[in-house]
Amino acid sequence: MRYFKSDNTAAVSTEILAAIAEVNHGAALAYGADQWSERLDAVFGQFFETRVRVFAVSSGTAANSLSIATFCPPWGTVLTHAEAHIERDECGAPEFFTGGAKLSLVTGAGAKIAAADLKARLAWFEPHVHGVQPRMLSITQATERGAVYSPAEIRALADIAHASQMAVHMDGARFANAVIAQKVSPAELTWRAGVDVLSFGVIKNGGMNAEAVVFFDPDRVADFEFRRKRAGQLACKGRYASVQLTSYIETGLWRRNAERANRLAAKIAAAAPQLLSEPFATNQVFMKLGDERIAQLSREFGFYPWGPTGSGEARFVCSWDTPDEDVEALCAALRAMA
Amino acid sequence: MRYFKSDNTAAVSTEILAAIAEVNHGAALAYGADQWSERLDAVFGQFFETRVRVFAVSSGTAANSLSIATFCPPWGTVLTHAEAHIERDECGAPEFFTGGAKLSLVTGAGAKIAAADLKARLAWFEPHVHGVQPRMLSITQATERGAVYSPAEIRALADIAHASQMAVHMDGARFANAVIAQKVSPAELTWRAGVDVLSFGVIKNGGMNAEAVVFFDPDRVADFEFRRKRAGQLACKGRYASVQLTSYIETGLWRRNAERANRLAAKIAAAAPQLLSEPFATNQVFMKLGDERIAQLSREFGFYPWGPTGSGEARFVCSWDTPDEDVEALCAALRAMA
Amino acid sequence: MRYFKSDNTAAVSTEILAAIAEVNHGAALAYGADQWSERLDAVFGQFFETRVRVFAVSSGTAANSLSIATFCPPWGTVLTHAEAHIERDECGAPEFFTGGAKLSLVTGAGAKIAAADLKARLAWFEPHVHGVQPRMLSITQATERGAVYSPAEIRALADIAHASQMAVHMDGARFANAVIAQKVSPAELTWRAGVDVLSFGVIKNGGMNAEAVVFFDPDRVADFEFRRKRAGQLACKGRYASVQLTSYIETGLWRRNAERANRLAAKIAAAAPQLLSEPFATNQVFMKLGDERIAQLSREFGFYPWGPTGSGEARFVCSWDTPDEDVEALCAALRAMA
Amino acid sequence: MRYFKSDNTAAVSTEILAAIAEVNHGAALAYGADQWSERLDAVFGQFFETRVRVFAVSSGTAANSLSIATFCPPWGTVLTHAEAHIERDECGAPEFFTGGAKLSLVTGAGAKIAAADLKARLAWFEPHVHGVQPRMLSITQATERGAVYSPAEIRALADIAHASQMAVHMDGARFANAVIAQKVSPAELTWRAGVDVLSFGVIKNGGMNAEAVVFFDPDRVADFEFRRKRAGQLACKGRYASVQLTSYIETGLWRRNAERANRLAAKIAAAAPQLLSEPFATNQVFMKLGDERIAQLSREFGFYPWGPTGSGEARFVCSWDTPDEDVEALCAALRAMA
Repeated sequence: MRYFKSDNTAAVSTEILAAIAEVNHGAALAYGADQWSERLDAVFGQFFETRVRVFAVSSGTAANSLSIATFCPPWGTVLTHAEAHIERDECGAPEFFTGGAKLSLVTGAGAKIAAADLKARLAWFEPHVHGVQPRMLSITQATERGAVYSPAEIRALADIAHASQMAVHMDGARFANAVIAQKVSPAELTWRAGVDVLSFGVIKNGGMNAEAVVFFDPDRVADFEFRRKRAGQLACKGRYASVQLTSYIETGLWRRNAERANRLAAKIAAAAPQLLSEPFATNQVFMKLGDERIAQLSREFGFYPWGPTGSGEARFVCSWDTPDEDVEALCAALRAMA
Repeated sequence: MRYFKSDNTAAVSTEILAAIAEVNHGAALAYGADQWSERLDAVFGQFFETRVRVFAVSSGTAANSLSIATFCPPWGTVLTHAEAHIERDECGAPEFFTGGAKLSLVTGAGAKIAAADLKARLAWFEPHVHGVQPRMLSITQATERGAVYSPAEIRALADIAHASQMAVHMDGARFANAVIAQKVSPAELTWRAGVDVLSFGVIKNGGMNAEAVVFFDPDRVADFEFRRKRAGQLACKGRYASVQLTSYIETGLWRRNAERANRLAAKIAAAAPQLLSEPFATNQVFMKLGDERIAQLSREFGFYPWGPTGSGEARFVCSWDTPDEDVEALCAALRAMA
Repeated sequence: MRYFKSDNTAAVSTEILAAIAEVNHGAALAYGADQWSERLDAVFGQFFETRVRVFAVSSGTAANSLSIATFCPPWGTVLTHAEAHIERDECGAPEFFTGGAKLSLVTGAGAKIAAADLKARLAWFEPHVHGVQPRMLSITQATERGAVYSPAEIRALADIAHASQMAVHMDGARFANAVIAQKVSPAELTWRAGVDVLSFGVIKNGGMNAEAVVFFDPDRVADFEFRRKRAGQLACKGRYASVQLTSYIETGLWRRNAERANRLAAKIAAAAPQLLSEPFATNQVFMKLGDERIAQLSREFGFYPWGPTGSGEARFVCSWDTPDEDVEALCAALRAMA
Repeated sequence: MRYFKSDNTAAVSTEILAAIAEVNHGAALAYGADQWSERLDAVFGQFFETRVRVFAVSSGTAANSLSIATFCPPWGTVLTHAEAHIERDECGAPEFFTGGAKLSLVTGAGAKIAAADLKARLAWFEPHVHGVQPRMLSITQATERGAVYSPAEIRALADIAHASQMAVHMDGARFANAVIAQKVSPAELTWRAGVDVLSFGVIKNGGMNAEAVVFFDPDRVADFEFRRKRAGQLACKGRYASVQLTSYIETGLWRRNAERANRLAAKIAAAAPQLLSEPFATNQVFMKLGDERIAQLSREFGFYPWGPTGSGEARFVCSWDTPDEDVEALCAALRAMA
């Protein structure tokens, strides 16, 4: 079976395993007091061209939820897209970590939130005790439908959010893919555009089991560290998480892996452009195939039908280590169908 | 100022105050072990023509949230209408009481959920750990737009819910108004149609500060009583809450008050039927007046503009003690406008 | 049966019912926007001789828990006595309202916390993420064993608490009894001694179903009002709660009722002083009777054995409306036993 | 600096890294649907000689808290030792994961709970809604003071617990050390003695970042999997966690590493037996040194003073890779002091 289900089926990059092996000698202080963990802020600070505070956690769900809980009180609400991972794929983790805050949903093509729709949704809230109060905006970069937000789009959303006392969270499970796709700097896609906290994804793009939470204002980390510990997300042997993050940046792995994943996906999109159901941008390809062709392809390829039952849509995702021959085979099959 | 803002601006019915005065002598065991509290199950059992368990709480928000928390686990979700009180007017109380369960929204005219829309929304959920699991349906009777669910409509929704492991909650803040409007029995509108737990509203219809939570299956009360205590909702001097509930039923107050409120509202609806923006059914009247007429009416009448800013819609609510002359004045003003 | 189980078995004072009847006419804005609720701050401000913010809730458990949740984060801990009501009698309400904060216990005679013991307990905590952080001290006035804290004792505890970033909460379910017992002013027993927030009990001393939460620094109310709404503790028809609180103060009811309760209890204590197991101070009397005498008394009197099984201790509580003849009968029985 | 601070400062065993490298090829289904994760139940079932359900999580805190949340409702309480890790070192994680359950503390020498003390503590609880209800007993094996529970001791505690509707949790962060110390089988120390769920520690004894939660009754897993996902503890690339657990068992690493750690610690204990403040049993050594000797040793050795400030006690922990020469140096220093 050739897998295009998700970039999370991929193996771990050699660079990551090498970094782990390299630190695996002798004793090191636990819980992040080791010399490698102490480099996190500096390494990511250089990457983002500003002072940051960076914390490792074990999953994207934890990264998102802890980011949100730091800014959104229990009586607050997070505005996010109806197809966002935090809404659809985390089993209510943001609600758990915040102590019962609400997600308030916005719809929009490409799983993107448009500024006008954000404004319209905000108009429903009133500053009284009867309703939850908007305190956070969470956007996904790249989105759950493979689209990206440009720096200008982020800025427009962030300005609206900040004017309403909302902090801006970016779920960057595929942040590297979005950076590569847009040929902009990590800084331009985050703090320069108004992002306050980023879930910086590493696992889907070559990592093993560490993601980074990046705060762009070191003074607003608030009680994040207590919440992380309390959630069982403070790694005992911190070095093994931290070097996944630092080597991801310092070896350029983030760029190489995302470039390859995006490039392979581009081939798939180009194989049957008339079938595309979403404009192609990153490492995800969405196609309207119809149920019959989906069934046919499923004999040889592993992938997810997308959307509600009967939509006839399918999603193909390439990762850093999707085999070239699997991509060729899929392209050939799609060309034959188109 | 003549008030049509809500039925919660009304005073308390004489019958309720008399019942309170009547039990106000001597010592009585606290926390519901008094003789009056012990009558709750029997009185409501007769009213609903079945065995029930009944618990007093201090507010509708508490009644709804505790009902929901009894059936819906933290990783569950409550399907409800986007305009439901539990979604829009309780500051996230269901999320708080459940430990972070989610509300999943369905839209529909009249703030009602249609069976087909419930099915369509359910189709989005999958029985895996990545998403929250539907465990409860909550409908409002009468709805936030004054509509009612018929026994057949409730049955259709309940059958869908029960087939998906969901319990059925009815927010009956205006339950008496819905019963009167439909000329059906309380039993027909609840357990006979598949309702598992009812927030039985008393306060808006003549009560002071007690609502009833009614479980129609005494074996499914689960840990409700622990949750009620833990939420500060177990009244110390229980008799004063319990007699509000029993006298509401036994004196026929529920019927008299709802009949009057509905009758007054009917007059308003009849004064300018061409302005109605919702079909009239209970004690709420919705009209499309336009911002100018809203501003004009607001000089003499207290009422709420409804819906998003600029919708030009207004809501008028009658209570059991809305003065006849206030209704006449409003009718005259509306007739003059129409 | 003559009841000495608790002051919460008492009826409601005439003054309270009269105040409720007096406001029971016509419409009033809901949720605390009525003219009577708007007097709360002023009435209690005068009583405490300082600017305060006052909020009504429906129970002592709610008052305590909402007070605590306002100051103590989920990763914080509340230092309190092992016999405190918040630890032993509220089914984990503080843990629920705070989102999982911890209570850390201190022992001490009379259910009182001594300054030295507070310091010793604090020494166990370290300012790192591995342990919860002390953020609140909660003391009970009068205590669960009938003792009182003097202004000097409170000041000593508050100084320690404030030096450790802890706010000071007083559970004043029997605050009036403590004021009367000590012949000091309400101000001296609270903010002048360092109390930040008070659960001001009304129910046990003549009220029906309203308690007051009093913040002594109006700038530190924080998100209390959101939390109250979200907990179902914001009364819809606010006037009926608010006038219980204001009439309790303005008619002098707090004083008259507490004086009588304390006076009756004093008679019981004087009837068999050699049996007292706690020094007598307020309206609670603790005696070491032995299981046999407890069984004998239980035939005529309703009261609670106290402490762990087999301790042979009993508690007798007088309320504002305990009948004189019941007290006489108990005194006679005790004298016969002693 | 020679480190005896904790076994969590150790590196990762070669066997673990090799197992990770071995599975690092090609695509594998995410979230535990891979072939290696699917072996967990079988491998641990053989180890424990019974049918089990096993789940990987990223930390001991997560293992403990998720175990507890599966059995203990929000209105429940966990009886545990006052020095337990879940009470003192997890920043309130059990309270967070349970939605606000309480820990109720028992004291006892060696950080062990004696059956009589458990019974005495249980006597304080009553089966009514006013107090939290005991629903779980959590014991640590080996304890935070290096002691072990024998099978008979566990059985005695478990019988008491089960008779009171409490499930039995074992925090086995150092489970392997306890097995080795007692020369009994893993089965004898767990389910045969009444343990319902085990936090099986791997990290401190050679692992990287995976611990196992072991349910001994496959029918009582309840909603554990939803809670794990919701807590961000379901690893995306599951194989890298699962093979840490299976290789730990299958290569005999658990035994070799624990044997070495215990043996090294025994040397330290033997170097100055007269200074021991706790009987020696596993890989932790507690000594009463006095503040002066602690200061002196601290120049060359990294270790923790233990207990409250001024106690003069110190803890030395050996891990699987503590250098022999570090142990020799410490022994020499202690001998010189004794």
